[in-house]
Amino acid sequence: MPSQLGAARALALRVGHQSSPSYRLRLTSSPLLRQIRPTRACQFSILSRPNSPKRNDPTKAVQWLFPSRRIMRGISGKPLPQRRSVILNFAYRTAAIIGTGIGFIGALFAGFFIYDATTYKESSVTFGDCRVSEAALYPRRGGPKNLPIIEALLDDDDNEEARKKKTKPHLVILGGGWGSVALLKQLNPEDYHVTVISPKNYFLFTPMLPSATVGTLEMRSLVEPIRRILTRVGGHYLRASAEDVEFSHKLVEVSQIDSRGKEVRFYVPYDKLVIAVGSVTNPHGVKGLENCFFLKDINDARMIRNQVMKNLELACLPTTPDDERKRLLSFVVSGGGPTGVEFAAELFDLLNEDLTKRFPRLLRNEISVHLIQSRGHILNTYDEALSKYAEDRFARDQVEVLVNSRVKEVQKDKIIFTQKTDDGTIITKELPMGFCLWSTGVSQAELCRRIAAKLGPAQNNRHALETDSHLRLNGTPLGDVYAIGDCSTVQNNIADNVVTFLRGHAFRQGKDPETVELHFSDWRDVASDVKRRFPQAASHLKRLDKLFAQFDKDQSGTLDFGELRELLKQIDNKLTSLPATAQRANQQGIYLAKKFNKLAHCAPGLRANDIRDGDLDEACYKAFEYHHLGSLAYVGNSAVFDLGGGWGVTGGLWAVYAWRSVYFAQSVGVRTRVLMAMDWAKRGLFGRDLMSF
Amino acid sequence: MPSQLGAARALALRVGHQSSPSYRLRLTSSPLLRQIRPTRACQFSILSRPNSPKRNDPTKAVQWLFPSRRIMRGISGKPLPQRRSVILNFAYRTAAIIGTGIGFIGALFAGFFIYDATTYKESSVTFGDCRVSEAALYPRRGGPKNLPIIEALLDDDDNEEARKKKTKPHLVILGGGWGSVALLKQLNPEDYHVTVISPKNYFLFTPMLPSATVGTLEMRSLVEPIRRILTRVGGHYLRASAEDVEFSHKLVEVSQIDSRGKEVRFYVPYDKLVIAVGSVTNPHGVKGLENCFFLKDINDARMIRNQVMKNLELACLPTTPDDERKRLLSFVVSGGGPTGVEFAAELFDLLNEDLTKRFPRLLRNEISVHLIQSRGHILNTYDEALSKYAEDRFARDQVEVLVNSRVKEVQKDKIIFTQKTDDGTIITKELPMGFCLWSTGVSQAELCRRIAAKLGPAQNNRHALETDSHLRLNGTPLGDVYAIGDCSTVQNNIADNVVTFLRGHAFRQGKDPETVELHFSDWRDVASDVKRRFPQAASHLKRLDKLFAQFDKDQSGTLDFGELRELLKQIDNKLTSLPATAQRANQQGIYLAKKFNKLAHCAPGLRANDIRDGDLDEACYKAFEYHHLGSLAYVGNSAVFDLGGGWGVTGGLWAVYAWRSVYFAQSVGVRTRVLMAMDWAKRGLFGRDLMSF
Repeated sequence: MPSQLGAARALALRVGHQSSPSYRLRLTSSPLLRQIRPTRACQFSILSRPNSPKRNDPTKAVQWLFPSRRIMRGISGKPLPQRRSVILNFAYRTAAIIGTGIGFIGALFAGFFIYDATTYKESSVTFGDCRVSEAALYPRRGGPKNLPIIEALLDDDDNEEARKKKTKPHLVILGGGWGSVALLKQLNPEDYHVTVISPKNYFLFTPMLPSATVGTLEMRSLVEPIRRILTRVGGHYLRASAEDVEFSHKLVEVSQIDSRGKEVRFYVPYDKLVIAVGSVTNPHGVKGLENCFFLKDINDARMIRNQVMKNLELACLPTTPDDERKRLLSFVVSGGGPTGVEFAAELFDLLNEDLTKRFPRLLRNEISVHLIQSRGHILNTYDEALSKYAEDRFARDQVEVLVNSRVKEVQKDKIIFTQKTDDGTIITKELPMGFCLWSTGVSQAELCRRIAAKLGPAQNNRHALETDSHLRLNGTPLGDVYAIGDCSTVQNNIADNVVTFLRGHAFRQGKDPETVELHFSDWRDVASDVKRRFPQAASHLKRLDKLFAQFDKDQSGTLDFGELRELLKQIDNKLTSLPATAQRANQQGIYLAKKFNKLAHCAPGLRANDIRDGDLDEACYKAFEYHHLGSLAYVGNSAVFDLGGGWGVTGGLWAVYAWRSVYFAQSVGVRTRVLMAMDWAKRGLFGRDLMSF
Repeated sequence: MPSQLGAARALALRVGHQSSPSYRLRLTSSPLLRQIRPTRACQFSILSRPNSPKRNDPTKAVQWLFPSRRIMRGISGKPLPQRRSVILNFAYRTAAIIGTGIGFIGALFAGFFIYDATTYKESSVTFGDCRVSEAALYPRRGGPKNLPIIEALLDDDDNEEARKKKTKPHLVILGGGWGSVALLKQLNPEDYHVTVISPKNYFLFTPMLPSATVGTLEMRSLVEPIRRILTRVGGHYLRASAEDVEFSHKLVEVSQIDSRGKEVRFYVPYDKLVIAVGSVTNPHGVKGLENCFFLKDINDARMIRNQVMKNLELACLPTTPDDERKRLLSFVVSGGGPTGVEFAAELFDLLNEDLTKRFPRLLRNEISVHLIQSRGHILNTYDEALSKYAEDRFARDQVEVLVNSRVKEVQKDKIIFTQKTDDGTIITKELPMGFCLWSTGVSQAELCRRIAAKLGPAQNNRHALETDSHLRLNGTPLGDVYAIGDCSTVQNNIADNVVTFLRGHAFRQGKDPETVELHFSDWRDVASDVKRRFPQAASHLKRLDKLFAQFDKDQSGTLDFGELRELLKQIDNKLTSLPATAQRANQQGIYLAKKFNKLAHCAPGLRANDIRDGDLDEACYKAFEYHHLGSLAYVGNSAVFDLGGGWGVTGGLWAVYAWRSVYFAQSVGVRTRVLMAMDWAKRGLFGRDLMSF
């Protein structure tokens, strides 16, 4: 293609140099001539014009024979021919531009094919005999339960880097979700020997899961192999599930099912352990959840997809009675959180955009989507205006939103729930349904329960593992075990630490903390100390003078121990626990990675100064602070953005594109991004494919 | 981006017009200056030069303020600025071309987004109340088993076209494979009321299935929803499986499992029935096939993929003993046909190209792939040279090919087979394995068995349903039932029809066919008659004189009845049955479609001439003739093409691309093509994703 333009330019070159009236005259003749004549003219001009600067150059005459040369000249550039007619010029140049464009794309394609050809290995790869340590092949037994202890892995000796790592501190990460991946992406490759243990060998981009249930996105576009993510840090992966942790022995007990279906258990030793196993669906003690679908894993998405398709196909059969058809086409979503709302929206899109094209009309008319929400509004964690918008949207799309409703029981073919009417009376309703998604909150995973029980008094939260503001699991040796993501919560017990806050100050005054009196300046010091240790509290420690006045009950101009504790207690109460979102897990992962990088470098120094068991984390790095970046949700060809602090944005198609680009940006890697883009393009071009397998 | 070029051109326009030495001089200064000065110069030239042709045009001075205008001028085109330095010109023009290219692509993207935006339905689609006939909602019962008879479908009244179709002859197609789809793609939309009955609501592009097992292609790229294919002919689809056919009542008995898991049966009436249900895997009476995987359906592909991944993950665990690891990594393929060979090749690619990157080296060294073939060569239906090539290829890739080997039993963890050594002795071997694919030929589906049994003497082939050369199922009323694809075979019984061939001739001679004597000329007539009725025989009826001489035993110069039958018998024996390939099914489907189109138009005329029960097919259309277009197979970064008649091509990467383009061209629709291309690009860019779910 470039030759096309090239030709044009090559043509140009000569014309540019002669502007004899005769030529001008010629130009006024038919367009066809305009195309041809100049060329001739040039030939002539080149070969005969005595005062031509090019005359002494013999190659000029030959050049017409070699298109490649013409391209060269085209690129090396001479002016394009001038026409009198603007239209003709316009057309001419447009053609040139389009030509160039197509040529450019062609070149890109060619380039890709050449690259692709290099990705096939002609010969089969074989490494002579590779080094594997005895310890990896025949692990020694030990630990409290005398299980095999995996001190070395099969690929510990595969290459130089791997061999170097063996001596580094062993960092073991449980789980492959947002927290772990964020950590892995920020961690310095050279500082730790990393091992990830997870029953799933892929990271799942959870926020987009609802899209996968109806085929807006393909499942593979939402997942990234853990191994691929681990390559950067030269980490190792074991496909197994953590069962327990022996904190005193620094061993993780891991189980895995072998090829014969027998469970095999073994220990994985750690220097640092990160627990990021996430959470499980919360049954809320409702009967008959076996009749529900869930949406936590990629397989769930496929099962939902198949069930939806199955119901549609059954509804098409004339042998299906009409009431049965209505039931099959009644889709119920229990839980009005982002997941539930987005699923309802995606489902509606499927039914509205694709179903109508290929299935009998009757189905479209008999389909109903219901959203059961226990609170007064859907998206109740969002700004009220936004949830209102979502509700209106659904109302318009004939998605029935049932608020103030609690599911009592789910049966094979109907769901029974109680609804609180406006006058407060509670009535029991039932809804025939062919499909029910259960997406109401999360609860603690088995492993976490076991750990919490083990740590006893240090853990008093039945929903998540409690950590200090450095994300260290309470009740474990400092700097050994960390917990991040949905499975953890940062404990805000400022008041309980009042003594530690006062100690330094009291020492200076040579007093007992209990009896110390704080002047405003002292209080300011304490406050800054609190802020440092509990960053979340900062927002509540802005007007120090106000607080001081407020809690200095006896107007003594000083705060005594009791008054101070009261003050801190009140702040504790104001502090809310962090949301169980991908966003939080992500931030915690990044925080840990940065801290670990720091520790790896300052730890030796500290050890030199004989600070071994001291609070290394405290010494090296600041406490974790959560920054809420807002939340967003897709609500059917429109999206809502909650930017926090009462700020919110809602919108139609543009918001959908914005919503997509946010996730596009957050996506793990190039691969998933390209795939997601491809999927969105596919949806636009071909719609969703209504198949089940 | 275009503005970039626009600017360049806009710049160009002025420079082109002034060629004062002073300017030339300036140009010799620094490159930066060269970029800037001209602009200034022009500004100046425009505003001040008294003899400027543009002087009277006031807009000129303003234009710099409006980039859009600059683009316009760029497109309407004025010569680009001339430099003395060729390099600078070259760079300058290259930049312009690349700029244009990128701009062009940008424009395409923008265009796509605009299109995409139109694909979202802002408002929810609803048709008021739609018409559905009583018969569709409450089908009457009847037929031999008194089951509901589906005389009308839910979408029979959805729109005008559908309503018109109700009166057309009802064409019922069983199965959604190659044959059916080929038929649907060629059939005239207006002539028949089409209903497809198949348990799977998608067409599967079977030849590429091996690629899907290892993630070279995604599964969704190989499937096309039947409903999408049916849209063109305005056809209907029922997701159910055909159980039996009542030929006398023209009813298909269909079964389907309702939402409660209960089987529901009903009748679908037909005027024309096409049986294209394909075949099932052939167990060859081997024990323990439950320990094998098969490769007929898209789900099989997923199961295989997951199993392969599972084995790899287990092999990574240090607790797995070494011998167990070797077993897990021993992959066995039983059957050296195209499917088996291509799977082995794809599997090897996966292990060779992707595994080595992310898994411990040890695995790569302990992996083994074995191919068990009962014949003396793999790909034994192909030209010998090709199968030799494939074998060499595998040998080089360390894929062990075990020929002359028959599997006796498959156990959970090993496969037992007998091997014939060169000296003819048979020895029993066993091979520990972690995965076994069973891909040895096909056998008859349940439905076909039942039908064959029902038709009794008319069907004597235990492997497939016998049809005449018009693809009409033998033993059924002419023109009612057709069978195509793997489930059928065209019967070559020329000798049995000798009487019918002779009848016409005998009548003319006023003789009894048994006693007629054929001179060479008569024989020529008979031969052409045979060719017309049995096109496959044509190739064996070339040298008529030779045949005549050969079979005229008594040298009487004439063929008597016995001699003629001998001759035809010999031809029968030469005729081989058609291969059970996608290619054949495809050709048969197209043949039927064309015939049906023809019939729809000539049938009325014939009926007018009172030809009702006559052989309409024979009268309207020629018999089916199979044209072998050759076969091809992928054998690991190279491919073999068998063009038939001993012609064959083998090659490396170029052959792979060729192999792909063949299938790319054969693919059902735009959607699958785009998806396949995307997948191949994905593989090139990111490799195969080693995940299982």
